[in-house]
Amino acid sequence: MKVVSTSKSHGGVQGVYSHASEVCACDMSFAVFVPPQAKDGPLPVLWYLSGLTCTHANVMDKGEYRRLASELGLIVVCPDTSPRGSDVPDEKDNWQFGCGAGFYLDATQEPYAKNYRMYSYITEELPALVAANFPADLSRQAIFGHSMGGHGALTIALKNPERYRSCSAFAPIVQPSTAGWSRPAFEKYLGSDEKSWRAYDATLLIEDGKRFPELLVDQGTADGFLQDGLRPWLLEEACRKAGIDLTLHMQDGYDHSYNFISTFMDDHLKWHAARLA
Amino acid sequence: MKVVSTSKSHGGVQGVYSHASEVCACDMSFAVFVPPQAKDGPLPVLWYLSGLTCTHANVMDKGEYRRLASELGLIVVCPDTSPRGSDVPDEKDNWQFGCGAGFYLDATQEPYAKNYRMYSYITEELPALVAANFPADLSRQAIFGHSMGGHGALTIALKNPERYRSCSAFAPIVQPSTAGWSRPAFEKYLGSDEKSWRAYDATLLIEDGKRFPELLVDQGTADGFLQDGLRPWLLEEACRKAGIDLTLHMQDGYDHSYNFISTFMDDHLKWHAARLA
Repeated sequence: MKVVSTSKSHGGVQGVYSHASEVCACDMSFAVFVPPQAKDGPLPVLWYLSGLTCTHANVMDKGEYRRLASELGLIVVCPDTSPRGSDVPDEKDNWQFGCGAGFYLDATQEPYAKNYRMYSYITEELPALVAANFPADLSRQAIFGHSMGGHGALTIALKNPERYRSCSAFAPIVQPSTAGWSRPAFEKYLGSDEKSWRAYDATLLIEDGKRFPELLVDQGTADGFLQDGLRPWLLEEACRKAGIDLTLHMQDGYDHSYNFISTFMDDHLKWHAARLA
Repeated sequence: MKVVSTSKSHGGVQGVYSHASEVCACDMSFAVFVPPQAKDGPLPVLWYLSGLTCTHANVMDKGEYRRLASELGLIVVCPDTSPRGSDVPDEKDNWQFGCGAGFYLDATQEPYAKNYRMYSYITEELPALVAANFPADLSRQAIFGHSMGGHGALTIALKNPERYRSCSAFAPIVQPSTAGWSRPAFEKYLGSDEKSWRAYDATLLIEDGKRFPELLVDQGTADGFLQDGLRPWLLEEACRKAGIDLTLHMQDGYDHSYNFISTFMDDHLKWHAARLA
């Protein structure tokens, strides 16, 4: 692991790191915030998964998580959203596929299967790297994310309920296999047999029996992707049928940007901290 | 005035605006945050001046001021740092002069005198525009800034003590007329007669009799510009001699970045709010 940068912030250290990822077969970057309580022993880890077009840097710059993470004693890990590099197959000018659009799945189709393995990267390789290099207590993990990263957080938590104590999302894509902005990517990554897509679709995972005890979702009502891409009512219906305790806050007038996320960041950090205590 | 964008944030509205500036003879952009209390009447205005290379966007993205400004009922105005555009004379690849480096002064030398009039822009044209377009109570104004913008805040407050109820700075350039990174710019903007530079130099303005009742400065000890560019001890000495009540906090381990600024943003907002009440 290589240290790209470190900077003191809110009493802790905000760092950016890179490493040669075996899983994604390319160099990967990620951000980690370590709060000051780390001097007294290992701390719980909160994973934040970012949305389409983002890197680790968007939430690091605009997410406003450090003040409260520092108070609450949370390590916050912010991975990248896809493999990157000149050796990674991609579609320039397509923001919904490839670079910045890994959708937190393991691709099975060529030429993407070699690099696009974000599910394994987030659930296996990166946790091991974090455990080896930071004062992290991996028996206490939680996960959240935004948009495509909300999709990532929900699907990863539903598939690994024993690993994460809590899960939440800002404006998540709750049913990517039926949304116009994700269907083409799913087809390229996973092939045309849509049954295989269900393993990476939060509402369909719930339909298929996966469970997580409780979920927190915030969604802005002025979000331009609400009606076609996000559709939180699909998650609401799936959770109702499955008996999953979903807290869904429709936030009046908020859009899809980090102005929305940063406004409700404190609520989500408190939600996770209470469950990681 | 043209609305570039607006976005709900922390209960208020973060907007970006542009206008054809007469003073700078080019189009200028700026950011304004209006907190929710604006529905009940005009609010005090806090001016934030940014540092070298910045636009209005750096502090808007990374400054973490909205949560508390929203609680305290402060309008926060974030101007750009220089005139810009293809008609504005500049030096490409020089981050210490021209574009992003207006130094909050009125240039007297050709070819810069036509556009580089940031002092008049910040003290005259932009306040009038803000007053005309936002629920702003201009009888209650305060000013702060970072680095070159800290220099701007200090010099503007010292020259207009009746206008600003309070002034503070993060890692300000306190004596630009003797610092290597600002002397070349001062010479190009103001000419080789260094007497004329004193009007835009905080410590020399104090030497020359300008006064402001109290100042708050935060400075990181791990700031790479501390020894050569910033030198807060020069301000400390000038304030001591002049009887100005300077509160200088040397913050252990903090650098020059927005990780430093955002950490101490709350302290500065509370400082100003107490004096704007």
